[in-house]
Amino acid sequence: MFNTRYVLASRPQGPATEANFRTEEAPLAELREGEVLVRIHYISLDPAMRGWMNAGTTYVPGVELGAVMRAFAAGEVIVSRHPNWKTGQMVTGLLGVQTYAVVKGEHLTAVDTALAPLSWYLGILGMPGLTAYFGLLDKGNPKPGETVLVSGAAGMVGSLVGQIARIKGCRVAGIAGGEDKCSFLKDELKWDVVIDYKNSPDLSAVLKEQLPEGINVFFDNVGGNILDAALTNLARDCRIIICGAISQYNQPAIQGPSNYMKIVTARGTLSGIIVLDYFDRAAEALTDLSGWLKAGKIIYREHIIPGIDQFPFALNQLFTGGNNGKLLLQNTYE
Amino acid sequence: MFNTRYVLASRPQGPATEANFRTEEAPLAELREGEVLVRIHYISLDPAMRGWMNAGTTYVPGVELGAVMRAFAAGEVIVSRHPNWKTGQMVTGLLGVQTYAVVKGEHLTAVDTALAPLSWYLGILGMPGLTAYFGLLDKGNPKPGETVLVSGAAGMVGSLVGQIARIKGCRVAGIAGGEDKCSFLKDELKWDVVIDYKNSPDLSAVLKEQLPEGINVFFDNVGGNILDAALTNLARDCRIIICGAISQYNQPAIQGPSNYMKIVTARGTLSGIIVLDYFDRAAEALTDLSGWLKAGKIIYREHIIPGIDQFPFALNQLFTGGNNGKLLLQNTYE
Repeated sequence: MFNTRYVLASRPQGPATEANFRTEEAPLAELREGEVLVRIHYISLDPAMRGWMNAGTTYVPGVELGAVMRAFAAGEVIVSRHPNWKTGQMVTGLLGVQTYAVVKGEHLTAVDTALAPLSWYLGILGMPGLTAYFGLLDKGNPKPGETVLVSGAAGMVGSLVGQIARIKGCRVAGIAGGEDKCSFLKDELKWDVVIDYKNSPDLSAVLKEQLPEGINVFFDNVGGNILDAALTNLARDCRIIICGAISQYNQPAIQGPSNYMKIVTARGTLSGIIVLDYFDRAAEALTDLSGWLKAGKIIYREHIIPGIDQFPFALNQLFTGGNNGKLLLQNTYE
Repeated sequence: MFNTRYVLASRPQGPATEANFRTEEAPLAELREGEVLVRIHYISLDPAMRGWMNAGTTYVPGVELGAVMRAFAAGEVIVSRHPNWKTGQMVTGLLGVQTYAVVKGEHLTAVDTALAPLSWYLGILGMPGLTAYFGLLDKGNPKPGETVLVSGAAGMVGSLVGQIARIKGCRVAGIAGGEDKCSFLKDELKWDVVIDYKNSPDLSAVLKEQLPEGINVFFDNVGGNILDAALTNLARDCRIIICGAISQYNQPAIQGPSNYMKIVTARGTLSGIIVLDYFDRAAEALTDLSGWLKAGKIIYREHIIPGIDQFPFALNQLFTGGNNGKLLLQNTYE
């Protein structure tokens, strides 16, 4: 058995390309005591991965040159030398962009595929799900009747944030790019207001017209001009939750929000969501989310691309807006 | 008796100039029931005035073209047709850039010149004092031993913020421009760290070296590159208090903080201080501030320019950093 892995070969300036990675085929290493061999079925593609390719440490250290590209992934235990795991168990963890991973048993999380498909534990029942849940509810603290605006609204995190806000009795508005995404939000998710930014040269004016009462909670996945437009239309005592800035990750210099003084005049607060901080409260989120899924209160879509050789093409779909739903790579084995 | 007044004639693009104002000499109007005539002794020059010259409403409406330029001022009641006021009383209020003001009695605040000089009620015992006090203590919530960084540190608000932080047991660092200001902070106020930004081409690196523990509270009066540098050196759970952005008010486009994602990774929050929100708690601040002044725990400096004809030259001193201490215009009467 051979492992196929994507190793970070150089640091991208703009978008990551094939040239930033090296694919390696390597025989599987002998397991040491405490280690587990996992066959990876799904690899999660998340916006944060672009940041991990940079040098230096943000909330986690960047990936070292020559190391396997970091990614959340889900798979099956093939061999275990750790007392907690046995062959056939399904797990998730930071397993990397590869077909097999050898990891310490304590770095794995068990998942129950009787309750939900394996891949869901990388999305709605994984990090992105926790990010949306705690980012909105713990940081944003939305109250019934308030207006919640989400950017990157058709993305994994964005679409979940809006759906949770609706469940909590909020008026929900989303900003997304293109007709497909907007009709998903409008027709399938039944959001109150959906704005196609590709169709809105003066986004600030559109927000003012569509949300005359102002924004109580802004959940931002995008940054750049969309963040600046939202800042012109804040309601008093608003909360701005920065989850990401996907419009900026591939830029040579980040565009700061030039309207940040509007936060002051609106008596708002800006803060961020780092999902690592909520791991000890995961059960709380998973109980709610799986309950809502079962009750049909949440619609969840996946966009699965087969073949590890599609990475990094697949990764870039996140940044070009090419995906519809939670983006995953699926490993295929003969 | 004639009133000399500065009227807003046009809206400045960059710095305000003589050309943006018209001086008018007008006979004093007859008082109506409920009105008071005040002879103005001191006119406060505050950074917010530049914003008031713009069209539109922020936290207050902009000054109308043709109206007297808005300013806080202090003076003496000459004639009163309001039951609460009588000739000779000393007062403050939004009296405008002029030598005499006719105002409704309910818009005046009484001051006690037996306790402190009249002019102090425009500074440490007025709006700027309340701004520093509540901005730091209520918004920043600094704890003993924490590091508080202040920009515009030699200004009225900045120097007071740092002094209050020291009283509260914090480690205090200030950023100011030029040797005079820095030696005031270092030698007279005895702050722990003083950085001359004019002398620090790589401010981010200087902050990292001087404040290796990171910034717990950043009180920002300046914006622009100084805000961006501070954001690279945040401690976990930091509070960023935006009071102003004096480096930006005269710019055609405001420079947003390109490092705003550092707030997310530091688990920080950014919010602002609007002193209007704290008027009902003014007594709390004034008790503390006058106590600290009496005990010699606070050093307070004024920079008084005589002659109303020195406005707007005097106003621009705020933006060029020409003032040392709280900047005031003093009216002179023959």
